[in-house]
Amino acid sequence: MDENNFLNIAKKAKEVSKKTAVLSSDIKNKALSEMAKALDSKRDFIFEANKKDLQEASLMVEKGELSQSLYNRLKLDENKMRDMIQGIIDISNLPEPIGKTLLKRELDEGLILKKISCPIGVLGIIFEARPDVISQISALALKSSNVVILKGGREAVNTNKAIMEVIHTALSKVDELPEGIITQVFTRDDVAEMLKCDKYIDLIIPRGGNSLVKFIKENTKIPVLGHADGICHLFVDKSADFNKALNIIIDSKTQYPSACNSVETLLIHKDFPNAEDLLEKLKSAGIKLISEPESWHKEYSDKILAYKFVDSVEAAIDHINTYSSGHTDGIITEDKASADRFLSAVDSAGVYHNASTRFADGFRYGFGAEVGISTNKTHARGPVGLEGLTIYKYTLEGCGQIVKDYVDGTKKFTHKDIL
Amino acid sequence: MDENNFLNIAKKAKEVSKKTAVLSSDIKNKALSEMAKALDSKRDFIFEANKKDLQEASLMVEKGELSQSLYNRLKLDENKMRDMIQGIIDISNLPEPIGKTLLKRELDEGLILKKISCPIGVLGIIFEARPDVISQISALALKSSNVVILKGGREAVNTNKAIMEVIHTALSKVDELPEGIITQVFTRDDVAEMLKCDKYIDLIIPRGGNSLVKFIKENTKIPVLGHADGICHLFVDKSADFNKALNIIIDSKTQYPSACNSVETLLIHKDFPNAEDLLEKLKSAGIKLISEPESWHKEYSDKILAYKFVDSVEAAIDHINTYSSGHTDGIITEDKASADRFLSAVDSAGVYHNASTRFADGFRYGFGAEVGISTNKTHARGPVGLEGLTIYKYTLEGCGQIVKDYVDGTKKFTHKDIL
Repeated sequence: MDENNFLNIAKKAKEVSKKTAVLSSDIKNKALSEMAKALDSKRDFIFEANKKDLQEASLMVEKGELSQSLYNRLKLDENKMRDMIQGIIDISNLPEPIGKTLLKRELDEGLILKKISCPIGVLGIIFEARPDVISQISALALKSSNVVILKGGREAVNTNKAIMEVIHTALSKVDELPEGIITQVFTRDDVAEMLKCDKYIDLIIPRGGNSLVKFIKENTKIPVLGHADGICHLFVDKSADFNKALNIIIDSKTQYPSACNSVETLLIHKDFPNAEDLLEKLKSAGIKLISEPESWHKEYSDKILAYKFVDSVEAAIDHINTYSSGHTDGIITEDKASADRFLSAVDSAGVYHNASTRFADGFRYGFGAEVGISTNKTHARGPVGLEGLTIYKYTLEGCGQIVKDYVDGTKKFTHKDIL
Repeated sequence: MDENNFLNIAKKAKEVSKKTAVLSSDIKNKALSEMAKALDSKRDFIFEANKKDLQEASLMVEKGELSQSLYNRLKLDENKMRDMIQGIIDISNLPEPIGKTLLKRELDEGLILKKISCPIGVLGIIFEARPDVISQISALALKSSNVVILKGGREAVNTNKAIMEVIHTALSKVDELPEGIITQVFTRDDVAEMLKCDKYIDLIIPRGGNSLVKFIKENTKIPVLGHADGICHLFVDKSADFNKALNIIIDSKTQYPSACNSVETLLIHKDFPNAEDLLEKLKSAGIKLISEPESWHKEYSDKILAYKFVDSVEAAIDHINTYSSGHTDGIITEDKASADRFLSAVDSAGVYHNASTRFADGFRYGFGAEVGISTNKTHARGPVGLEGLTIYKYTLEGCGQIVKDYVDGTKKFTHKDIL
């Protein structure tokens, strides 16, 4: 058996997932604590590895083969390391997500149905540049009793290997933990194999640019949790407060323009009184304004904002339900009726009233951490925290009950909720 | 524009879904009531159409082109019609599944996050013979504010058309209801197109035999809710009560052998004292027993039961986690520790202790109705009721908050749960 063959890695992961599913909170939290301690004590070893990656990456930036923003995301510094470590501690402090009784129902006397949260099984994580993703996703997977196979970008290969080595050493200190909860693979062939592996991998989470996510969504039958595009909208209603509108638009566009929750298209009610003034002030804030139909489909990820005048709230809703990527869209208005109509009719993961689209984030929502933001219409939508890494099973505990008795009328279901 | 072109039907469905998403409970329940009344008053018209299908089908049965069991499922009688009508009334009486506030959290003063249940969007339903599926699925889809495109089997084409005509007439009486909530398509080409239509169809639910479900799962990127196999297990532990074991096995195997929740493999602890007697009594109950490794993968859907002796509870769990289709598996034991270990370690949608596997059913679980049983590891697992046809969105209501203030430390999140 070739141990590096992806199929074997995936099979092994599936086997390990059966053991991981029943780990106690104590053991999982102990492992998370060891992970945090190990990263803390091995930071120089990791920075050393990161330096190697950065050297190669800077050559690639010079040659134009790597963008400056990818280079920045690749770079680990003391701040990022501190956040990585704190992130693991925060995750270990979250409530236990597994084994929760979500429903408890008496079907009949002595016949008790329970719906209990459990892990999904094996997660495949494919991510680009940011090596801090490893510790975050590994911690989330461990906390939710899932097994994870990670594939990082080749730009970060030395950093990723170093972090993984530190994590593995930390986990090996916890005897009760099965080996192989977190595995890393490295090649493009591994990714191709992962996408085919629907027998052993239950969920794929891509973390990276549009083209990576699109490629994955189009090339696998395994459920994919994530989003390709982030075409977010803000609609300035006729009754919008001028200053709220200005502040929210500037924050949504400029606070971090390459984020997926940054606004890309501004819709303005034709009767909003100070539209020209608003547009002027946005330009003064360094935002380039564009008004052409080709823009409605575009994610600029830059200080560029498409804008359009619309006749009504309904027209804004229609535009958004046509062009939005279903990520996050907001209305700015002082009219409660307009706001309510917008919140109920816009079909996006996040629908906002008088707030910046940049709030669409697991930490800001108070989830403690996130695996990403989903624009799916099934399983999990919006910022996905631990809950998105769980599913449930039904247990039924009886004392010999058979269905025949309920079909022939000898017995009747009581269907009484106990919880 | 060719109106019968599937792509146009799907596009239309997506448009209609935006209107359907915001329908009030009253309007939906009024429509369900009209559906029930119309089926009641038009039963002769439907029986007439069903007769046509039955005539053709009986010729096919004679030629061996259609199985007797499919013929039986095709046949509508007064009992099935009564159940169809009552089913719609029951669904209209279920609690409103849309617009529920699943989470309400203050992120900061005046910045309120809500997680609100909403419809998935457009459902594609592909089903075989049973024409009663139309009314059940249409009612569930309507109650959950989803739009549905149905494709029934060609054996039932006359019945399906008649039922759909009656439903359409009923729905047209409710003015507030958008047109096109329920559409029917008829050809294999339509199915092929449906499977490709991931832009407009959000979820596919196949209702039918293994080969249909397998084909669909293998030929679409749209999420599929359902199960292909139903390879269910019962494990008789060494401390099992003899009579409980006998009754549960007979019920699980013979109460309705072609059901997906019927048991296919019996595992017996080697130290269970009365194994030979048990096997003899199962034979006397008309069950054919088989003990060969090729059987572990097979769904017989008949009074045939594979059996195997195992050394321990752990060996039973391993066998089940290897060969089970993840549908429903049970343990028969008087030993609480064995039962608990089994319930936590078996990774199936339903895990039972001292109860028949035949209980795995939405009605028996008290869900009121079901769209099917899922063996998926994401979104919905086990019997799926209305909740499986919903997802959620996050609304955020503020008064001008921007992210910059929370990043630079001017403001701090409070993250207080209100609900």
